[in-house]
Amino acid sequence: MGNRATTEQRTIRIEKLTSEVFMPFGELIETGGTSPIVINEGRCERFSDLAGVEFIGGRAGVSLFQAELRRLPHTLTMLERHPLGSQCFIPMNQSEYLVIVAADEGGRPSTPRAFMASSTQSINIKRNTWHGVLTPINGSGLFAVVDRIGDGNNLEEHWLKEAYLITE
Amino acid sequence: MGNRATTEQRTIRIEKLTSEVFMPFGELIETGGTSPIVINEGRCERFSDLAGVEFIGGRAGVSLFQAELRRLPHTLTMLERHPLGSQCFIPMNQSEYLVIVAADEGGRPSTPRAFMASSTQSINIKRNTWHGVLTPINGSGLFAVVDRIGDGNNLEEHWLKEAYLITE
Repeated sequence: MGNRATTEQRTIRIEKLTSEVFMPFGELIETGGTSPIVINEGRCERFSDLAGVEFIGGRAGVSLFQAELRRLPHTLTMLERHPLGSQCFIPMNQSEYLVIVAADEGGRPSTPRAFMASSTQSINIKRNTWHGVLTPINGSGLFAVVDRIGDGNNLEEHWLKEAYLITE
Repeated sequence: MGNRATTEQRTIRIEKLTSEVFMPFGELIETGGTSPIVINEGRCERFSDLAGVEFIGGRAGVSLFQAELRRLPHTLTMLERHPLGSQCFIPMNQSEYLVIVAADEGGRPSTPRAFMASSTQSINIKRNTWHGVLTPINGSGLFAVVDRIGDGNNLEEHWLKEAYLITE
């Protein structure tokens, strides 16, 4: 084995997204799993408080992200994290998207994991958790985002020496 | 004219939803209007901090509402408000919905106004603003909701003596 990883070694296969596998990185927000509260005279189910939102020295805000669609296989060159707040992505108007996350290993991302989220699945990424940028694969690319609004540096980027190829 | 309003007088026509007309009640959250910040190497537009969220004695939470579809004309029998927090509705997976709001008049809702929101339009309803319950007309009826999580009574209901008919 040489010093340089082969392309094959740098390939990451997309896994099935479930609450359990995503738990180290944040929350999968979907209607399955928990029991709802029934409100509005029986006409609405409320699945309450599904995201572990956290905002240090700032406040929650709601923003819209209009992201360019990407294609598979996806070349991953950078991971980022937000030391001061969680970040919740809510697909609007039919967007299927790739979710890339990684555990921390001494201040750098370890080997990333990739999941495909459907248009009925939102995700909340924990504060200070390494993740790829928003990567819609199908649909409109429109997302609502609940994250921290406030002063201070809330972005850390890690550029990879060698890219990963994310594939089905 | 008698003491009792006729059905005709109690009919409310659905208006076009714009930021300007909705301003007294909250924010219309959509990509038009404001200039985005360009992020992620030019591949994503961020329309930042579009909702005037406010949470008194609690914190922001993200929930899912799975609401039954309604039909037009819609019979409005109740308005509610939340004294301790704003409430933001984000349509997921193609939901068109009726937004009903009313100004306050001495502790009761004045004549309501009704708007139709598309699946690319989210809304934030200000703290303590009278509104109808979530009323999807088309689509999946699935919404993400950003509202206050915390103890205390955050719900006030006003049942109308006579219903309003909301119509196109």
